Amino acid sequence: MNQGRAPDSSGALRLGDGSRTVPGMETRGARVPVAVLGATGYAGVELLRLLARHPAVELTYLSSEQYRDRQAADVYPFLRGIVETTLRAPDPDAVAGAAEIVFCALPHGATAPVVRELRRRGLRVIDISADFRLRDAAVYARWYGEHAAPELLADAVYGLPELYRDRIRSGQLIAAPGCYPTGALLGLVPLARAGLLSEPVMIDAKSGTTGAGRSAKVEQLFAEVNENCRPYGIGVHRHRPEIEQELRAAGATAGALFVPHLLPVSRGVLSTMYVRAERGRPALETIFASAYAEEPFIVLRGDGDPPELKEVRGTNRCAIGWRWDESTQHAVIVTAIDNLGKGAAGQAVQCLNLLLDLPETTALEAPALVP
Amino acid sequence: MNQGRAPDSSGALRLGDGSRTVPGMETRGARVPVAVLGATGYAGVELLRLLARHPAVELTYLSSEQYRDRQAADVYPFLRGIVETTLRAPDPDAVAGAAEIVFCALPHGATAPVVRELRRRGLRVIDISADFRLRDAAVYARWYGEHAAPELLADAVYGLPELYRDRIRSGQLIAAPGCYPTGALLGLVPLARAGLLSEPVMIDAKSGTTGAGRSAKVEQLFAEVNENCRPYGIGVHRHRPEIEQELRAAGATAGALFVPHLLPVSRGVLSTMYVRAERGRPALETIFASAYAEEPFIVLRGDGDPPELKEVRGTNRCAIGWRWDESTQHAVIVTAIDNLGKGAAGQAVQCLNLLLDLPETTALEAPALVP
Amino acid sequence: MNQGRAPDSSGALRLGDGSRTVPGMETRGARVPVAVLGATGYAGVELLRLLARHPAVELTYLSSEQYRDRQAADVYPFLRGIVETTLRAPDPDAVAGAAEIVFCALPHGATAPVVRELRRRGLRVIDISADFRLRDAAVYARWYGEHAAPELLADAVYGLPELYRDRIRSGQLIAAPGCYPTGALLGLVPLARAGLLSEPVMIDAKSGTTGAGRSAKVEQLFAEVNENCRPYGIGVHRHRPEIEQELRAAGATAGALFVPHLLPVSRGVLSTMYVRAERGRPALETIFASAYAEEPFIVLRGDGDPPELKEVRGTNRCAIGWRWDESTQHAVIVTAIDNLGKGAAGQAVQCLNLLLDLPETTALEAPALVP
Amino acid sequence: MNQGRAPDSSGALRLGDGSRTVPGMETRGARVPVAVLGATGYAGVELLRLLARHPAVELTYLSSEQYRDRQAADVYPFLRGIVETTLRAPDPDAVAGAAEIVFCALPHGATAPVVRELRRRGLRVIDISADFRLRDAAVYARWYGEHAAPELLADAVYGLPELYRDRIRSGQLIAAPGCYPTGALLGLVPLARAGLLSEPVMIDAKSGTTGAGRSAKVEQLFAEVNENCRPYGIGVHRHRPEIEQELRAAGATAGALFVPHLLPVSRGVLSTMYVRAERGRPALETIFASAYAEEPFIVLRGDGDPPELKEVRGTNRCAIGWRWDESTQHAVIVTAIDNLGKGAAGQAVQCLNLLLDLPETTALEAPALVP
Repeated sequence: MNQGRAPDSSGALRLGDGSRTVPGMETRGARVPVAVLGATGYAGVELLRLLARHPAVELTYLSSEQYRDRQAADVYPFLRGIVETTLRAPDPDAVAGAAEIVFCALPHGATAPVVRELRRRGLRVIDISADFRLRDAAVYARWYGEHAAPELLADAVYGLPELYRDRIRSGQLIAAPGCYPTGALLGLVPLARAGLLSEPVMIDAKSGTTGAGRSAKVEQLFAEVNENCRPYGIGVHRHRPEIEQELRAAGATAGALFVPHLLPVSRGVLSTMYVRAERGRPALETIFASAYAEEPFIVLRGDGDPPELKEVRGTNRCAIGWRWDESTQHAVIVTAIDNLGKGAAGQAVQCLNLLLDLPETTALEAPALVP
Repeated sequence: MNQGRAPDSSGALRLGDGSRTVPGMETRGARVPVAVLGATGYAGVELLRLLARHPAVELTYLSSEQYRDRQAADVYPFLRGIVETTLRAPDPDAVAGAAEIVFCALPHGATAPVVRELRRRGLRVIDISADFRLRDAAVYARWYGEHAAPELLADAVYGLPELYRDRIRSGQLIAAPGCYPTGALLGLVPLARAGLLSEPVMIDAKSGTTGAGRSAKVEQLFAEVNENCRPYGIGVHRHRPEIEQELRAAGATAGALFVPHLLPVSRGVLSTMYVRAERGRPALETIFASAYAEEPFIVLRGDGDPPELKEVRGTNRCAIGWRWDESTQHAVIVTAIDNLGKGAAGQAVQCLNLLLDLPETTALEAPALVP
Repeated sequence: MNQGRAPDSSGALRLGDGSRTVPGMETRGARVPVAVLGATGYAGVELLRLLARHPAVELTYLSSEQYRDRQAADVYPFLRGIVETTLRAPDPDAVAGAAEIVFCALPHGATAPVVRELRRRGLRVIDISADFRLRDAAVYARWYGEHAAPELLADAVYGLPELYRDRIRSGQLIAAPGCYPTGALLGLVPLARAGLLSEPVMIDAKSGTTGAGRSAKVEQLFAEVNENCRPYGIGVHRHRPEIEQELRAAGATAGALFVPHLLPVSRGVLSTMYVRAERGRPALETIFASAYAEEPFIVLRGDGDPPELKEVRGTNRCAIGWRWDESTQHAVIVTAIDNLGKGAAGQAVQCLNLLLDLPETTALEAPALVP
Repeated sequence: MNQGRAPDSSGALRLGDGSRTVPGMETRGARVPVAVLGATGYAGVELLRLLARHPAVELTYLSSEQYRDRQAADVYPFLRGIVETTLRAPDPDAVAGAAEIVFCALPHGATAPVVRELRRRGLRVIDISADFRLRDAAVYARWYGEHAAPELLADAVYGLPELYRDRIRSGQLIAAPGCYPTGALLGLVPLARAGLLSEPVMIDAKSGTTGAGRSAKVEQLFAEVNENCRPYGIGVHRHRPEIEQELRAAGATAGALFVPHLLPVSRGVLSTMYVRAERGRPALETIFASAYAEEPFIVLRGDGDPPELKEVRGTNRCAIGWRWDESTQHAVIVTAIDNLGKGAAGQAVQCLNLLLDLPETTALEAPALVP
């Protein structure tokens, strides 16, 4: 498949073949070569942070339009001694010559044409842009503009392992979910599957600033965000159709009103969700316990102290809590994720582990940074 | 009335008599003497900040259990040259000997017995604790414990000028609302009055830390709050009965599910509220415009950029915005206040201005501190 | 002088004539018309915040290249009902037609040509850029590039009232100092005048982010500044020559090593300064007490609890503390200012008050926003 | 030695015997049992965070007076699934029965008696309190009060591996340095050794709040620290004698004036240090390069962009930068550490690795959490 690199006859790199050994642990040469495109954005650098310590991969190609030909550690000094790779242009041939799996952390719209080229060259792609998350090109067009590679949509797998683990394992193009959808869906899909989403659900989400990326905008300046909190895109945020698509796929028969807010924190998405349950108190404990019995990254907090951002900071975890309010007959579901972890790069690495048939927690074991 | 102080024969202090002159502008002696009890808590010091520059009052008595016999400016250096008063015990006789109007910023439970003594001595009281907000002693008992002065409840006026302006003017005991109820009610009461609250409303509120007061608690340490966000008291916060009491009084026929969150900011309450409107889009613009046509502190943001915390920081304003979501048939109402301003001390000063028959904006004109 | 506006024959506006009455208090028409150029930068909007409530002036002309033809309150919602002026281009003729005094909050380099035009039209200018602070055009050229209007340097008055009060009163072009120089000089000039600066002084300054202005730069994004602190421009920051110029003028015979740091706060400059005193402990208490006996904005904290940023936030104050270290024979001087207050707009308004022969505290009385 | 535990005859745990294999990697049983006393303070929980993933140790005993008999994960939810140990009292016999090496994260003063008991039972101790850092009991008494176990001082090794690596390897009682001394000494000791500290050095340090521990104090509340910065303990902070002790041991002939500041960040110590060099520019590049040629945790930033807190957040690194100022003949040295990492728990784990003869980076490889 990958023309630019001799196949590894030892079989150590057998991708997705069901073996449970960790390939490449012994010698550097046997690691799977991976590329990160858009390596200096916030999601990109989180990928570097995680992949640099992944025992089964080797970072062979990093791209950054903005910092081309510079060292990643010049842009991010913390990478000194950790990532020593030069940043290059995202040239498909060069990428194909250096890598077998490509993490794509480019802006939406710009992503689809690049992915088309990468797929033509037989590379597996884990994309964290929005370009392949919506299954319907017409829906995509309504929220983002004309799709540049609609023929790929049918093959794309929505990269939320808790929902689509098996399809991810054999996927060639993984569309890692947005941060908001991840936080919302992990809290709501079990209810949708239990037939509890027959009324509109209210999703009040609060996000750290890195969700907006690293581009220089006045509204993201420290003095604008600090000591502030504001909603934005009420009901019209681009993550809404993605949330509704997956809730419907899980059985929801009503829509979701999604209202994001900007928090003065760097990382994290807290989602507080209001579910009307007209048939009375749902068996939330049972629903969540059975949905997530085996999940390595789901922490069920139950109806005690609710989830909070800091317990997941720097991790791939999703903490889930709930509370039933008898007087209004509503369930409140709360989830907390790190928008760069489970909401972006962590989830992408979890998908990688599925692709490589590795334990899902590989390179994702670090505890949260607390305090 | 006030036994401990010679009556002002000049009449310059005629309280609530309808005159529009500002008493005490000419000579210091003619200012209304006021006391602040609990002057070193966060709401207390905000009262000092505002009252120190109020042209019609003189701060004659400050109490603080914790810092008794010290100078206010020792505890808060910014008060140097602004408030030079010694902090004393909250002794009712001493207070009555020094003041005509008393701001009470003491903890709930501890407040009622003090207010009873102050009322017996004929003093007018503006209380910012929870002790006189709930009209029903039984409801109070359920949320706070036995009420220590239930006989006063009938005379207490709920100190939200936008709802009870006329009663405040002649009130003897004003119960200034909690910060969360202020933010919620200003956004919801016009809808309740329009008959739109026949379904439960969801109130997702986000607050700065000063709402919890200035007592030393681990969960309020910088390193606990910073880079964090968490809900608490889901459905069971003590401000819920206060919100529901006033919504019902305004015509709501369903309850309110109230979920507060702690933000890493010092000041501010942002309330995002979800109102189901089964009869279709309400005339929100008209409803709010007519409800608040003459209000000096209400800023209607309409359905453009939503309100944000920073635009009200340090002020007595409440910014209100709204958005209609057709697909789920819900209205989203957003309000922003400063929890220490319109949510506590600012509102109390606004009530004072009503008591003194002054322009309501007196001493409350300062623009927000932006950036 | 001002061609575009009839002279006020009533004399109510007699500028700088020694009268102590506040002109324009009675009728709006008699207020001095002022312009603010660069009104939407952080220093510009702080000028609006202060001037909107100044009893002797009227904001008649606001410029903003970026937001031309929009309302100031569209850019800064907190200005609703406070500043209702449309933003225009900084056209000298239009400015001269509308204003008598101009606050210039434009970038350095761009300022000098504009000021030349304004001065030609007889307008008094209070400039908060760097363009007229350095007396020597050659020094300016070394740090900023060729000066565009060097002929004006001789007339410019360094706008630090504590040092140059009398010259400011009659000045036509006031160069308000930079934020760092203000914090450093107020702490060091009394020592220089006492002959104590014969050895190099170390100035370790820590600043909030608004000191860098409101332009969109990656390094000023929330997620870059938050949870961070870093020095920058060690020894080579442009405020160094300004500090050294004024220290020498006050008698210092050695240089100053200036090291600024970026803090994750919006406002404030804290300067910690290390002064070697080889002749033993200087009489710091006496030196500062006599230097600042009558100063309305200087708060002497002595050798007790040191100054802190929050006590000056939103004010025009400078808090000064000191400590003598016997074992190393060094004095430590600490000052705290708000970089947008005493460090920029507040100081400019203080200069305005001198120009107008008003009490210096006019429109600058608001206590700090604490907490 | 350890009475409560059978010796490991396999030799897999041979402590400090020079072997470079990682003991305990294969089977859980062969890991070295370690205790953490004071496990719920900020330094304590950082030890848990690091040790939970250390391949050669097993957390067998955790103590917490405050949360005794509770689960660590009840106090810190992020520990769910990571540390499942019950918190107990710090009983020496129980500790000795369960562990071979003890991390002591108790308050100063309370530590010495506990350590005496632990040492009597033959346990090796890595202490992060101040009790064994000062070699002279009289100096300790002056700053902390009477020492409770002065007989142990002679055996204590100052736990800064870059200075005392060999003695740490065979040490029985390691006194891990304070956070401020770590940041100061790593930047200054190479200069002291080069004979460059013959004049007093100024140390201007800025620290995050976790350096003050997790006890509930008003001055550490979010609303007190947020948007603030202040110096404290100018010249009289308890870390000063520790800094001066080690600088003198390295050849300094003059003192150090140490001025700490509190920053509104959770983690990090940035130290800006001013060194007078009367003989002209020192060869800083050479001095640092040779001092730290082999050090795994020292990052030399040279005279380019200075170190910043975020590049070391969550790590055991120390970034060091420098700049020469010709006009004042001073060198500016800047260091950045994480006060909980290299400033406390990370350094303690580095010492553990020396004790166990493991690669020093074991369990300390995680990159900084950026952004």
